[in-house]
Order: sequence, then structure tokens, then C-alpha cells
Amino acid sequence: MKRLLKNGTIVNVFTDALERGNVLLEDGRIIGVGDYTDADADAVEDVSGKYLCPGFIDGHIHIESSMLQPAEFARACLPHGTTAIVADPHEIANVSGLMGIIYMLEASANIPMTVYIMVPSCVPATPFDEAGATLAAEDIKTLFGHPRVLGLGEMMNYPGVLYDDAETVKKLEETKKAGLIINGHAPLLSGRDLDKYIAAGIFDDHECSTVDEAMERLRKGQWVMVRQGTAARNLKALLPLFDEPYCRRCLLVTDDKHPADLLRHGHIDSIIREAVKAGKSAVTGIRMATLQAAQRFGLEGVGAVAPGYIADLLVLDDLDSVTVRDVYRRGEKVVSDGKTVDFETPYIRADVWKSVRNSFYLAPLRQSDFHIEPKGNRCRVIGLVPDQLITEEMVTELDFDKNNGVDTQRDILKLAVIERHMDSGHIGKGYISGMGLKSGAIASSVAHDSHNLIVVGTNDADMTVAANRIRELGGGLVVVNGGEVLAEMPLPIGGLMGKQSAEVMAQQNEAVRSKVRELGVSQDKEPFMSMAFVSLPVIPSLKMTTLGLVDVNKFQLVPLFVD
Amino acid sequence: MKRLLKNGTIVNVFTDALERGNVLLEDGRIIGVGDYTDADADAVEDVSGKYLCPGFIDGHIHIESSMLQPAEFARACLPHGTTAIVADPHEIANVSGLMGIIYMLEASANIPMTVYIMVPSCVPATPFDEAGATLAAEDIKTLFGHPRVLGLGEMMNYPGVLYDDAETVKKLEETKKAGLIINGHAPLLSGRDLDKYIAAGIFDDHECSTVDEAMERLRKGQWVMVRQGTAARNLKALLPLFDEPYCRRCLLVTDDKHPADLLRHGHIDSIIREAVKAGKSAVTGIRMATLQAAQRFGLEGVGAVAPGYIADLLVLDDLDSVTVRDVYRRGEKVVSDGKTVDFETPYIRADVWKSVRNSFYLAPLRQSDFHIEPKGNRCRVIGLVPDQLITEEMVTELDFDKNNGVDTQRDILKLAVIERHMDSGHIGKGYISGMGLKSGAIASSVAHDSHNLIVVGTNDADMTVAANRIRELGGGLVVVNGGEVLAEMPLPIGGLMGKQSAEVMAQQNEAVRSKVRELGVSQDKEPFMSMAFVSLPVIPSLKMTTLGLVDVNKFQLVPLFVD
Repeated sequence: MKRLLKNGTIVNVFTDALERGNVLLEDGRIIGVGDYTDADADAVEDVSGKYLCPGFIDGHIHIESSMLQPAEFARACLPHGTTAIVADPHEIANVSGLMGIIYMLEASANIPMTVYIMVPSCVPATPFDEAGATLAAEDIKTLFGHPRVLGLGEMMNYPGVLYDDAETVKKLEETKKAGLIINGHAPLLSGRDLDKYIAAGIFDDHECSTVDEAMERLRKGQWVMVRQGTAARNLKALLPLFDEPYCRRCLLVTDDKHPADLLRHGHIDSIIREAVKAGKSAVTGIRMATLQAAQRFGLEGVGAVAPGYIADLLVLDDLDSVTVRDVYRRGEKVVSDGKTVDFETPYIRADVWKSVRNSFYLAPLRQSDFHIEPKGNRCRVIGLVPDQLITEEMVTELDFDKNNGVDTQRDILKLAVIERHMDSGHIGKGYISGMGLKSGAIASSVAHDSHNLIVVGTNDADMTVAANRIRELGGGLVVVNGGEVLAEMPLPIGGLMGKQSAEVMAQQNEAVRSKVRELGVSQDKEPFMSMAFVSLPVIPSLKMTTLGLVDVNKFQLVPLFVD
Repeated sequence: MKRLLKNGTIVNVFTDALERGNVLLEDGRIIGVGDYTDADADAVEDVSGKYLCPGFIDGHIHIESSMLQPAEFARACLPHGTTAIVADPHEIANVSGLMGIIYMLEASANIPMTVYIMVPSCVPATPFDEAGATLAAEDIKTLFGHPRVLGLGEMMNYPGVLYDDAETVKKLEETKKAGLIINGHAPLLSGRDLDKYIAAGIFDDHECSTVDEAMERLRKGQWVMVRQGTAARNLKALLPLFDEPYCRRCLLVTDDKHPADLLRHGHIDSIIREAVKAGKSAVTGIRMATLQAAQRFGLEGVGAVAPGYIADLLVLDDLDSVTVRDVYRRGEKVVSDGKTVDFETPYIRADVWKSVRNSFYLAPLRQSDFHIEPKGNRCRVIGLVPDQLITEEMVTELDFDKNNGVDTQRDILKLAVIERHMDSGHIGKGYISGMGLKSGAIASSVAHDSHNLIVVGTNDADMTVAANRIRELGGGLVVVNGGEVLAEMPLPIGGLMGKQSAEVMAQQNEAVRSKVRELGVSQDKEPFMSMAFVSLPVIPSLKMTTLGLVDVNKFQLVPLFVD
């Protein structure tokens, strides 16, 4: 069937011009742009007064951060004009390994959004991580033949690159041998170290937070991904990259987007909108988010409204506000008047489904599991820093005669990270300050990057209830007080993603956050977000793993009690 | 071994800036650009006051047109800064088929220039062509695994694309299935026809002769190759493409370059030089000839002076005149102070060598083979048009009582095209006007696209000598008078390429041209060039094939004698 979109104004990403033209689609491709008429088509849509532009491509995102399964992620993002994403399933791979990645491939097959996959390069993230899987170079390359696999995900292990770690080198070499792409992740790396990192074949980065950092990368040939997500927001600092000639080597990415943020503000469209508000050209933003993303990933025939190109295109009511009215994906209308046309959620094979659905292997917890046996009274306490992922190491005296060291008046709570992938019985236990919980306990299975079970509480009884509830749910976020579950957000897919729509997931997330406030946490704190990074031993200073406290600066385990 | 090039000014093709920096090379790659010092390197070269830029890439050339074997072509072009070419071995493929292409791959292996190959798409060129080979889609795809094969060569058969010819469609589909590139060749195609042609996956063209033609292609997503060769010279008309934003989607190519032209004017360097003289930016020209060529062909890590990039780079004495002093290829100095460092000509396996060296399969010719039996006296005569490849059909009365119809006073000479690939005995015979030969005969094995043996003469005896001499040489150009060979240029490799250096080949070519002048041809005529296209039945109006005269406008064979 031939479909004609007539009388629109086309955003030409090759010439930066706005031009009139009728666009003819057939079999998922654009077959003509020009003076085509109704007689040429089986179906005609008049888009007078509207703009036609290519569908947006997010060049780097972890779908898991949206807590949505891929189909629901697509349902939420399509109305914002996203027709393709390059996803790095780093989180689910840390839980379920290769099967987790295969789940993401199956769960994103035949949905009306193209989900390209970068195979995670760093599973587990560190030697201290008891993850659910290990991905060696030999494992990674088994996926390189898949048509939607574009290469190796963000190479966070830059020390491994700089010091020629054998397994890291092998991952890079296998990727290059397959003719595929390697994504970078090397914040603040500069000079010779950056040269060595790039020379390993890593030709992009999404971690730039200043123009100087970005300019060094552009000069040295890296594509720069301008990131504006829920957590990391670099757009304001990187606005000069929207100018010529720099914009030609930049793309737009979100990295992490939470469900409420997606619903409220949008996706790639919101980045372009913000850039336009700051005085930049919408056409430039659109080009960065379309043709240039395709160029960086070597996707010929993607990212433009031109003959031979995949018919992923948007009808915009307005250019500068990037108001998406309709979305065509491979020539089919998948968003009509701002609403996603419903589609079937992909079927997942039983073995794949079990590997992500049954991701907990953990015996029920007893209250005594949370007890800390005092070996003195001076302890290392993790001190949260407001609005940041870094923590401080505090050393303070705790009163073990009362409530096993917990002191809500001084905001010192108990913290446990429970290994949950192989029931090893490993539990890292200690204390955390800065969360503000006055009563009860909270628990989560979203705990970077190994996604073990993390619990913070004012008493062992509620911590036990909270941890066991997560275990029963097979993952999620819960709030407990007085032995009772006050709110919960189930995340049964790998302990990371739910099965509900973005709207329901956002509501559940809001309910959990609201209940936490009732337990004394102030509005300016995001305890589940803080908790998710307390277990990540790559961000300074003091973190908690299943093996105990890690001094990240020394990169070694340290005891809870100080002599 | 680490080599440092210090104190140069680097042409940064990512940012268009000229910047200071020291460049460190190792194992064929650039490993750093910045404040590296002598202490970092095993060898140091001070390039103070000079410019460093990436090696030039010719995005479309037929090596055969230089009449040089690949190693000699490299020896001639390296001093002009060409470190890589994308070659379409269309001519040798018409003579020796797959083996001809394999010859080109072997003959260009391990020479200090990277020769990428596009597999010829149209062998034979037309149904009237008795070529030395036929390449079907099944043949073509056997070469797609070779690391230097980038895709399918210029798709000249645009009617085949427009009318969905099954074999043409299969060639295109096999190429796309392999993830490779298809080069275009569709002069003057426009509008809907151009859309259909592009939509087949043909995303470049090198046949644009006007800005309007180029702009339509750019708007529709094709890369435009600005061609400036020995024959077709489009630079002047296409100079506006050197401006932003158009230049970002353009590259520089030569298509055909004769040996004397290469030696006298240069290669890609001369195109940039001419553009600068016309007021364009050298940096833009360099970017078109480097990074953008690499982008069009999907070559990651090629075409820039940056970490991780292949160390193909040039030391220029001057930017605007593009004066190449030294050339590094994969980190080795291959041109020093303007002189090519000698290297070994590749060894060719015996079976491959025989297929191109013994390309003639033809019994000796007798004088009677050239006689034309009169069937009336009104004949179709091919009329050459000065400085053009098109010909006119003249119908005129010939006097068969004198010299079998030849009349040097009216400049009517005899013409024969002799099938020489399978000794079929097919000889197309007739008359040609406009060459100006007053005595003797000339013959050539360079006769597009089938490269049969073509002879023009004033008498059958000299034509026989000339044809038999070409046969003995296994190909070449010869000039004969009074039964004696006056000059010859041997082209034993497929009848297309010689074994000598560019200097010797240019001298031989000059000798042949000079002797032709002694036989009465005026300075403004190039009889061997005219002769090379007289056999190509795709350019109007009247052409001669081994099967006889072809009326190109009617696209059918027509008799010599008119009733």
C-alpha cells in the first residue's frame, strides 16, 4: 500500500532547509519526495500547515531506568516522537547475564519502535560486585550476529583500557573484529589518558559535563552525546555544542529516564524544546537527534525524510515547541493525534521469561540476619551528600545498648545489602546518615550495578518485613512501618522493571515516595534514588556491598568498626 | 616503534580548525595528539612550519584509465597525497570477469596505498556487448566477504533499476543484504525517476554536471562526488558545493585519470588546489577528500588526524597550494620530500596472472578479414563530434571501386571492431569520419566497455598489421604505416594496463600520439580517445560493435548499407 503525506513542510536534515514536498511511503520506506499526487497513493493524509521530520533516535539509554518493560517504554515514548533507541541493557545483564539481554531483544522485537542493543561491557561492574552474572568477551561476542546489536556498550572500565587489562582488551578487539561500534563512558578523562582510551577504538562519549570536556573530545574525533536525562542533566552546560561546526558531531541522549519524568516532560523532544528555548535552532536539534545519530551508529538509510530512507517520521504541529501530532514508524501510523495506537506486547519464550522473572534466589530473611554484633562502638557511617551520588565517610560513636546502634535523632539508620542472586548468605551491614527516616524501613531491588537487595530502616523487624516483601514480589520498592507494608511498587522483571503501563508505574512510584514522606523523610530527599547508588563502589567515598563497606578512594573493603 | 611528528599545524577535520599539536604514531595508528615530547617516541620528525592533514581518498576511480597497474598507480599518486582510493575495476572485469577483479585485489595487496574495491555492477554493459565475461549477482556476491570490498560499483544500468529488471534487483538486494554500499551513476536523472533510483538504496552519484543536478541529489539524501578527472571535469560547475552546509555531504573523485595528467597535474591534491584558486577553503576541500569520503563508505577510524585513526597522513609545505612534502601511510613514511619510497610490486598467483596476461583469444587476422563486400553504395558512416563522446549518423555514397570505400580526401576511413575474447570471428566493419588520418592505420585494445580490438585505417594492409601487432602484444595502442609499426604502447595486462612506470607509460603514450600526427591527424584531435568510445553503445548516436553498427537512439543493430 502506498501512503501519501501531502502539503507538509519537510525538515531537510541534509541541507538544513525547510521545504515543501509530498512524501510517498511504501513497504516501510519513503519511496519519493516531491510533486506526488493523490493519484499516486492508496491512502492520502493532508498535513497542511504541519512539519514533517525524521523520527527521533535516543543514542544512549538504559530502558531499565524507566522501570518499564520495553513495550511499555515504547508506548510512553512514541507520542514524543522517539522511533528508535540505542539501549544498553546493563542493569538486566547484571541480574540475568546473556539471558537478560536476550530478554530485552525478545521484549523489543516487533514493537513499533526500533530498539538497537549495545552489549554491556562491564558485568560485573567491579571485583567487589556480587552480580547475577559475569559477561566475558566470549559471551559478549555470541550476540554480535544479531541484526539489532550494534556493538559494545559504554566502556566504564577505563582503568582496564588504560592499563591494558587482558579481558577488557579482548572485549574491545572482538567488537572491532566484528566491525561493530564501541560506546564510551569516561568522565573527566583528558590528555594522554583520553588519547589512549579513544585510540582503543572508543569513538563517542556521553559523560561530558562541561564544554571544555566536550571540545577536547570533539577535537580528538569522538562523537559527543549531549545527555539530558532524569538524573544527569548536561544540556545547559553543553548548549554551545548546538552551534556549527560542533553540532555536526553531536547527538542527543537521555541515559536514564524515570517514568514520571517521561510522562511529564517527554523524551528527546524535550531536549530539543529546551535547546530552542535557550536560543538554538530546532532544525539543528532535529538533525542531531536523527541523521547524526544514524551516522554515528553506521545506519544507512535511517534518520531523514528522503527516498530510500526508513519511513520513521513525525508530523509536528509546531517546529520550535516540537509538538508531535502523529508518528509513522516503518510507514505505519503508530501515534495518532498524540495517542499511541495500541499494539501487542511481545511474547517471551518460557526459558527467557523464567530467567528474568525468577531472578531472586534467596531464602527468607530472619530478623537476626539484620543484627549487628558490636565490636567496639566507633563505626564508619555512610554520609549521604544532598543532590549528589558521592558519599562521605563519617566515623562516629554509636550506642549499641539502644536499638543496635540506630539513632533516628542523629539520623543514623541501619543499612543492609543482601546478596540475592545465589543465596550465598552474604549480607553487608552498617549505618547510613542523611536519609531522614524516623520510623519503619524501606527496601529496594534497584541497587546499582549488581541489583542486590538493599534495605534501610529504623529497626530490624521492619527491615525484615521489607526485605521479605521484596523477595516475595521478585523485586520492587516497598515501604514498611510497624510490620505492615504501607506501599509497594512491584518490579518483577529482574527486580528492575514492572509489567504495568508508565502511568500505573508512575502512580506506584509516587505512592511509595509519598509514604516515605509520612515516615519523616523531607521533600528535598529522594531516598530510593540515594539507596540505588549506595551499593555502587565506583563513586566515592564510602559504599556498601554484599561483602561489606568499600572505601572507594582506596578501592578496598574496610571494616565497619574502627579501633 | 613510536614515531613523533612535532611542531606541525594540524588540519582538524572535525572542528575545521588549524591547531598546534604533536602527533604520536604506533603500529600504523595515531595513538595521541597533544603535548607529546621526544621522550615519548623512538623516532622524532620536526615538522615546524608545516601542516599535517589526513591522507586523501579518491572516492571513485577506475585504475585502468591510468593504464598503470595498481602498484605503478600508487607510485604515481602517493606523492600527491593519495593514501586510499575506492576503485571500480569495471574495465578489467569486462575482460577477465571475477579473475580480473581478483587480479586487482592481489595487485593492490600490501602496497602503501589502500585500494578499496567496488564490484562492477554492469558486466557486460549492454546486450550488444561481446565482453570477456558476464558477472551475475551470484558471481558478485562471492567477493563480498573480502575486507577491501566495500560494495557494488556504479549502477549504470538505471533503466534496469527503474523497470525492476530481475538480475539488477538481485544485485542490489544481495549488496544490501551484505550490509555494503552501492555507488550510483545516473546522469541527468531527476524527479520521480531519481527517487526510484535512490530508493533502491543508491545513496551517491558522481555524474552531476550542474549545481541544480547536484542540489536535487543532496536534498534527496545522496552523497555527491565532485568529479574532476582527465575527461570529465565538473569542478567549475560544482564549486558552490564547497560551501556550507552542502560540502558536508560531498566528496572529491577523479573517475578517470590518464598517466600524463597524473604526472603533470596531480590527483586529489589538484582538485583542492583548483578549488582554493577559485576562492574556496582548503580545509573544506581537505575535509571532503578525507573524513567525508570515509563517512560515505562507513570507514570508522579513517580520514582524520586523531587518536585511534589509521596513521595515513600528509606533511604539507603549504596549505593553499596543497604542496605535499611527506606522506605517511599506516605510520610508515612512504613519500619523502616528494619522492615515493620504493616498494615491491605484489606477486600475482599464476592462475590469476594468466587470466589477465593472456586475455586475447584470437587467431591471426588476414587482410581479407578487413574487406567489406559492397551491397550498394549508400552507407551509414559514424561521424565524430569534436571534443565529445557522442557521434552523428551520416548517410553518404561511397566509391567502392577505389580502396574499398575509403576516401581520405573526404576523411572517410575504415573502422573494424574485432571480437577478441573467444575468437568468434565476429568483426563489425564500417566507416568513420572526423579522425583525419591520411595514411596508415591505428589500433587499440582500449575500447569501452568490452575492450575488443578496434582498428581505424586508410587501407586493409596496414589495418591487418596494426591489429596483428596488438594481438601479439596482448593489448596496447599501435600506429602503423606502409606495413611498419611506427610506435606502440604495450598494454599486456588485460589489454588495458602496462607494466611500466607512469613516466614510461606517459612517454609511450606521447610517442603514439606524436606518430599519429605525422600521419595527418591535427593537434586538436585525440584519435585513440575517440576510438575508445566508438564501441560503447550507450552514448548516441551511431556506434560500432563486434556485431556491427548500433543505432543507440533506437538501441538496435542497423545495417551498414542503406537501400
